[in-house]
Amino acid sequence: MPLSEFALIERYLAAQGLNRPDVALGIGDDCALLSPPVGQSLVVTLDTLVADVHFFAATDPQGLGHKVLAVNLSDLAAMGALPAWATLALTLSQIDEGWLKPFCQGLFGLAQRYNVQLVGGDTTHGPTTVISLQAHGFVPQGQALRRDGARPGDGIYVTGTPGDAGLALAAAYGQVAVAIENRDYIQARLERPEPRIAQGLALRGIASAAIDISDGLAQDLSHILKRSGVGAHLDVGQLPLSPALCTTLEREAAWVMTLTSGDDYELCFTVPPEQHDILITLAAAWDCRCTRIGVITEEPGLRLSRADGSEFRLERLGYDHFR
Amino acid sequence: MPLSEFALIERYLAAQGLNRPDVALGIGDDCALLSPPVGQSLVVTLDTLVADVHFFAATDPQGLGHKVLAVNLSDLAAMGALPAWATLALTLSQIDEGWLKPFCQGLFGLAQRYNVQLVGGDTTHGPTTVISLQAHGFVPQGQALRRDGARPGDGIYVTGTPGDAGLALAAAYGQVAVAIENRDYIQARLERPEPRIAQGLALRGIASAAIDISDGLAQDLSHILKRSGVGAHLDVGQLPLSPALCTTLEREAAWVMTLTSGDDYELCFTVPPEQHDILITLAAAWDCRCTRIGVITEEPGLRLSRADGSEFRLERLGYDHFR
Repeated sequence: MPLSEFALIERYLAAQGLNRPDVALGIGDDCALLSPPVGQSLVVTLDTLVADVHFFAATDPQGLGHKVLAVNLSDLAAMGALPAWATLALTLSQIDEGWLKPFCQGLFGLAQRYNVQLVGGDTTHGPTTVISLQAHGFVPQGQALRRDGARPGDGIYVTGTPGDAGLALAAAYGQVAVAIENRDYIQARLERPEPRIAQGLALRGIASAAIDISDGLAQDLSHILKRSGVGAHLDVGQLPLSPALCTTLEREAAWVMTLTSGDDYELCFTVPPEQHDILITLAAAWDCRCTRIGVITEEPGLRLSRADGSEFRLERLGYDHFR
Repeated sequence: MPLSEFALIERYLAAQGLNRPDVALGIGDDCALLSPPVGQSLVVTLDTLVADVHFFAATDPQGLGHKVLAVNLSDLAAMGALPAWATLALTLSQIDEGWLKPFCQGLFGLAQRYNVQLVGGDTTHGPTTVISLQAHGFVPQGQALRRDGARPGDGIYVTGTPGDAGLALAAAYGQVAVAIENRDYIQARLERPEPRIAQGLALRGIASAAIDISDGLAQDLSHILKRSGVGAHLDVGQLPLSPALCTTLEREAAWVMTLTSGDDYELCFTVPPEQHDILITLAAAWDCRCTRIGVITEEPGLRLSRADGSEFRLERLGYDHFR
């Protein structure tokens, strides 16, 4: 006999083993009652994952539980926020405990690492799996990293090696052949992105603007440019390419993948010249690469060039959910 | 040519015409930046509506925009909270401006009445329409209406006339014939529920427990009983029946509808005897009925009886999304 909705909620979602002192009332009432810290801004973000659109229906549910939280923590990271709470809207076509249990393991495994408590949600029946998660965090008032603070002369940086998730997707669609020794690496980059929370916190007071790369580096950087009223010049030869990407694709195709593929959840940010040395010192302690890829310009628009100065053209900037 | 996702967001969702001073950053960055008031609890709730599960795909989109916010404001009302912000996760199979425009009109029409600002969200593509809305409000610390405060001897009350939405659904499924003069009334009760925000605020310091009736009066009251560790005795003869319900169904069937049908979004709450007179005075000014329907008992469980003392049995308590 299938579990009833209420037994489902109690058995899996309320059993996360985390009790933050700022949660007066969690799952189980009409609403959650929360106590945000005084003097800090509340930072909220939400992302939805739809089966067969954002993930394959057969995706490992544990990875999916990880990912739906990770993509939201990545948005908090891009604001320099410290994560605190999450809510979950879960639409399922059936109650399958063989799916729910590992999904919750993946979700709560990452949640515990960042001290994030699930405080509420709604489970509904629908024709396909739709997972919406909202993450809540804090940042001291006035210290949030925004999209609108980039100024001409600021360096443009990126964490990690964008393009890996895109490579994994291209491999899944049979568009590229990836050597066996690189498959686990790119699959993990697609299915278990690591939110750059520590990096976002470190960038408070250092970065002039930041965004996370979910729709493609070129497109997401363009959001910074538009909101800040500036342009950018990128040297594609400086783009950080993973060994997996380098050995799979030709150089120019690897640049396109790094610039336009989505689902990477790295941070792209700008830093004024006077903060450059501090950034380099901070980043030396990070568990991911931090690479300068270009500079903010007064002239609007995004210009890309190779090391020899020749222009590098993109057919499209990134991923648009409805095109 | 269809609008791109970003143009869609800008055109419809960012154009709501509300700018609360506690929203430092709304739609358009990685996250929203919000300033909760000092000394108050943050109250959050979310509800998901799925096409062909929670609403007919052909439902008037303006009513749907109203309803997805109303059902969440109803949860805030049940906590005695003052609404403030909302976020929206919208999964659509296509971008249809003929649907989006009235949907936003319905959503923002109700939002403006309660000074609720949409501060963020995510729009995604999917096989069917799934709408998740999270509402955020405030209540002074320690004053929230919870489910766990009912004590033996407390009176049990309900606002409005539950069962009307269930009657509208039964009529839509062709299970009952509703006289033409009642159709607009019950349709409005189903499609445009009025959140009992003013009532919830008034009940601060008066009610010992409260819940909103979304899954059926008997089932939702049972949540109060379970969480409070008490029972209840209801006199079904006291149930408030609308003229539409009375004239459509036999008395006993009307009671069943009032007790078990969902989607009503009225408040069920308990009040200690010493607060009874204050409640009556407060409720006299309300724009909806407020009816005493029973009493909290020490003995656990929900007992229902007719005026003559005979037991009234229900086959099921209410609506379970997965049964």
